[in-house]
Amino acid sequence: MPRVTPEHRAARREQILAAAIGCVAREGFHKTTMAHVIEASGLSAGAVYGYFDGKPALIRAIAERAVGSLGETLADIADGSDPVTVPGALRALLERVEQLADETGGAFPKVAVHAWSEATRDEEVAAVVRENIDRVHAVWVRVLDRAVADGGLAPGHDHPAMARALLSLMPGFLLQGRIFGMVDLETYLRGCTELLGATSR
Amino acid sequence: MPRVTPEHRAARREQILAAAIGCVAREGFHKTTMAHVIEASGLSAGAVYGYFDGKPALIRAIAERAVGSLGETLADIADGSDPVTVPGALRALLERVEQLADETGGAFPKVAVHAWSEATRDEEVAAVVRENIDRVHAVWVRVLDRAVADGGLAPGHDHPAMARALLSLMPGFLLQGRIFGMVDLETYLRGCTELLGATSR
Repeated sequence: MPRVTPEHRAARREQILAAAIGCVAREGFHKTTMAHVIEASGLSAGAVYGYFDGKPALIRAIAERAVGSLGETLADIADGSDPVTVPGALRALLERVEQLADETGGAFPKVAVHAWSEATRDEEVAAVVRENIDRVHAVWVRVLDRAVADGGLAPGHDHPAMARALLSLMPGFLLQGRIFGMVDLETYLRGCTELLGATSR
Repeated sequence: MPRVTPEHRAARREQILAAAIGCVAREGFHKTTMAHVIEASGLSAGAVYGYFDGKPALIRAIAERAVGSLGETLADIADGSDPVTVPGALRALLERVEQLADETGGAFPKVAVHAWSEATRDEEVAAVVRENIDRVHAVWVRVLDRAVADGGLAPGHDHPAMARALLSLMPGFLLQGRIFGMVDLETYLRGCTELLGATSR
């Protein structure tokens, strides 16, 4: 019997996750079943359950994949060696959003809005989404702290509150940019950057 | 046979619309049927169809009710006699969002996220939502034009692009504030206002 390498396991897990993301983008979280994911993955039920023991585990992995990668993008900025500015961090985050959308064939923005919708009905989905938003919020606060240290932001602001407003710029772009096709990344970033600093304090 | 007054008709229409909003908040757009709305309204099928000739008409009326009222709030600011500032307009808008959420027993934020989710699958819902976002976007541009005229905003910005960023602050508040219960209105508004004056240009 051949030994299963960690690379093989990772590729299989990826294959299942991609199938699940495709199902959720088309059907939403509520209607997606393990049977759908098994069929879409092209693997056996036993193989799929070997990686994800049920729908909650899949939901968690999908959220992790989407939001985890956005959090990492911001964390790299907060911990990096380049001087941090708010518009620079926002550009990196939204470029990553575009990349995620493209990598998943447009599924990521749909999965995000389905997750918000399902969260109004399903406490398990709500908990996963909430946890992920909290994580990105905490990283935004670190980015703002770092921007002050680097001289890119005046001191004395309420960073946790500002991070709430910054967090809104991501779903707002997903909706206006990717879901409704009303605005491109560069125009949106210009609007955000002009807004930051538009009023004197 | 008693004459039906315009007031009576308006009250009946309101009764049906409130029932429909409740159904959509619970079930989403896709699963809500005319039969559900008829049952929830407590009226006869004939009465309900006398006001809304089908689900598309109801969807249009729900969107109109929610987003129309937000557009009016901003239009009142753009056309009012008080000096216009961006944080002031944002406060008025988000206070109206809170009021709408309260008036509908929490249904409005849920209906909004269900509409975004359904728009990924249903071109009719997408068209209604897109139309309503466009309308609020146009009013935000007028608010920004007026703020410049009033001296509350420096001239020379790209107002249509800035209005895209401002538009994002509403869904972002619906999600973080009303759906996930992470932030209250005053904290959120403080964060937005600090962000608007945060970076040097």
